Amino acid sequence: MKSQLNSLMADRNLEAIVILASHDYSAPLDYLVGSVHITGGMAWKKRNADPILVVGGMEIEEARASGLTCYTYSDFGYYELLAQHHNDPLQANVALWGVILDRLGIRGGKIGIYGTNEIHQLLALVDLLRQTYPQFSFVGEAGTTLFDQASLTKSSDELDRIQSVAKRTNDVLEATWNFIAGHDVVNEVVMKGHNTPLTIGDVRTFVRRSLLERGLEDTGMIFAQGRDAGFPHSRGQDDMPLRLGQSIVFDLFPRELGGGYHHDVTRTWCIGYAPQEVHELYQQVMTAFDIAVEAYALNKQTYLMQTAVQDYFEKLGHPTLRSDANTQVGYTHSLGHGVGLKIHERPRIAHNSPDDVFSIGNVITIEPGLYYPDKGVGIRIEDSFYITETGELVSLTPFRKDLVLPMVRKS
Amino acid sequence: MKSQLNSLMADRNLEAIVILASHDYSAPLDYLVGSVHITGGMAWKKRNADPILVVGGMEIEEARASGLTCYTYSDFGYYELLAQHHNDPLQANVALWGVILDRLGIRGGKIGIYGTNEIHQLLALVDLLRQTYPQFSFVGEAGTTLFDQASLTKSSDELDRIQSVAKRTNDVLEATWNFIAGHDVVNEVVMKGHNTPLTIGDVRTFVRRSLLERGLEDTGMIFAQGRDAGFPHSRGQDDMPLRLGQSIVFDLFPRELGGGYHHDVTRTWCIGYAPQEVHELYQQVMTAFDIAVEAYALNKQTYLMQTAVQDYFEKLGHPTLRSDANTQVGYTHSLGHGVGLKIHERPRIAHNSPDDVFSIGNVITIEPGLYYPDKGVGIRIEDSFYITETGELVSLTPFRKDLVLPMVRKS
Repeated sequence: MKSQLNSLMADRNLEAIVILASHDYSAPLDYLVGSVHITGGMAWKKRNADPILVVGGMEIEEARASGLTCYTYSDFGYYELLAQHHNDPLQANVALWGVILDRLGIRGGKIGIYGTNEIHQLLALVDLLRQTYPQFSFVGEAGTTLFDQASLTKSSDELDRIQSVAKRTNDVLEATWNFIAGHDVVNEVVMKGHNTPLTIGDVRTFVRRSLLERGLEDTGMIFAQGRDAGFPHSRGQDDMPLRLGQSIVFDLFPRELGGGYHHDVTRTWCIGYAPQEVHELYQQVMTAFDIAVEAYALNKQTYLMQTAVQDYFEKLGHPTLRSDANTQVGYTHSLGHGVGLKIHERPRIAHNSPDDVFSIGNVITIEPGLYYPDKGVGIRIEDSFYITETGELVSLTPFRKDLVLPMVRKS
Repeated sequence: MKSQLNSLMADRNLEAIVILASHDYSAPLDYLVGSVHITGGMAWKKRNADPILVVGGMEIEEARASGLTCYTYSDFGYYELLAQHHNDPLQANVALWGVILDRLGIRGGKIGIYGTNEIHQLLALVDLLRQTYPQFSFVGEAGTTLFDQASLTKSSDELDRIQSVAKRTNDVLEATWNFIAGHDVVNEVVMKGHNTPLTIGDVRTFVRRSLLERGLEDTGMIFAQGRDAGFPHSRGQDDMPLRLGQSIVFDLFPRELGGGYHHDVTRTWCIGYAPQEVHELYQQVMTAFDIAVEAYALNKQTYLMQTAVQDYFEKLGHPTLRSDANTQVGYTHSLGHGVGLKIHERPRIAHNSPDDVFSIGNVITIEPGLYYPDKGVGIRIEDSFYITETGELVSLTPFRKDLVLPMVRKS
């Protein structure tokens, strides 16, 4: 939780952390200061002090809406620094950092840099910072960062938002199901007009509109049919008509509009009917899903849930990443991951992530799948869950897990 | 243009460039390889060679859709490297870079790193790369990067897409104007129902839906009324009802859905009527806009366009960034910027950017404004333009520049 940030900074010996804002949504910035609509500037947090924002004068009103103490570049003499450095913004920016560090009373030590930004700009900035201020150590962080660690435990405020996003996402699934079911079928093709098939692009447009109506935004949904469904991250082809009897992997992971909490869900649908082979593989994935949920226990290592699923799939003869790390058929991915302001958070549920455990406040996905692109088949079933204060695993995704989406011949 | 990348790499003595993909849209990645829906992996370009993509096995089909030569992590033995490094992805990733550099036949020299990504992860990666491979110099780039330089000159393919986005954005402006005009007015408030005012949030929802219908997405529009309009980057408050006689700054800068080319336009509207003071300031900004366009000439330094506008505003007694770098009233920003895959590209049109010139293939904005938040007034007028092969400055934003949006009393 956010309240852990000071101790997580102390663990890392960080005197301060800085988040660099940009036009792009930045989960660490949102986590630290809340939703703030600035396209540049920085959030600084000295250890054991409240964060502050430093922005261009044009964005000061938006910054102030955060409720934090806010400064403009002018407050730190930026434009004078810019003139001194012959209008070189990089040099002036480095000088600005010196002024801010001095005003914060930080004389040396480790400064952690976070956020989503243009990495080429960041690298040039850090190289000059290091050269200019040898008394400081400017560091990044790979693996499980302090924001990743804090985000492991969702607060009740966060959970409220997550549950709201979940509810709205489930509504969009229902609307999409009904949207497809409302169409006619001719020669095994779903039709939107007399001679016009309903395409994946049409469905995607419907889903995006349905999300928008509910204050959500798509972040790259997968709607992949037939062979495409056999590749876990194939997004699907917009011009492809929807056909009966094909496995369709529909993986929806929207977030609050403009950036915020995600929900993550996958359903596999066969429109009209399911071929025997698809039906059988689907039953196996359903069983794997149940095995995963049954393998859950509070404080248990997450990888044990994945190995339980891998045991089951391997016994049926499917390759897994454990039996063949390079396999592109069978069960080719990890079992799940944390979800929050980022779509992929901690904990990971993977056979090669032995250090992650299930803990109170986690929000996670469970998403077994089977993929055989050469047979034109891909199947994945995914719900999101949260772990309650008493350690229960509770689904956020009550939407039905029916394989067959029944159609009524209208004409 | 893209064809300049090799010579721009040679100018910088770069043996290769690497773009790190992530969940976030990355303009350099799009520029180098086209729209590719991968959420991880890398694009490598050795100087004078075609780019290649390296992705996880799950994304190989999406990568192949780029038409480039594609490899999976497995092709470079990543999973064996991961096992060797005790499942530490950072160590394995650094080892993977070594394998890729070796396969590309690059034995040393400068490697440029680009893209939009999590900067804390990047910094940790680069620090370990530098430590592991001292024969290479891993560098970023600030200021005008090689992608910024290449993007200065839009190709005819790019211009086709830019013109299409412009056309659709103009259509959304027209639709939004008509949407507001279609409402009733009671006591100087625009009403959507009997007792329900039309709010800024309602307008924003309409605009987002209108964009989506046209294959565009909002990237943070400004719709700021009254005092909020007086802060150039205030986005406006969703719960605020639309009122007659207030200056509304509507700055719309959508892009192709999922990431791509932008259009950038601002109009200032007064619903129903304009107060005398707003009308007068509006006329001044319109005159400034005309002065800017008249100051244009091919190969001319861009800052001269800004100083022409600053001369005019200062003569009228308005503060500018030239007369007072810290001013928060008057004319408080630069005159314009390039637009493309990024909303802010080169050239800049600012009095302190003396090196930028207008050149063939530029797509730019011209956007003078005046801001007096304490008077509840903000005004900005912005069109996007392109510079033709014969050096003409041609507007991409024909939408009308009327200040007053006329209302008809319906009840």
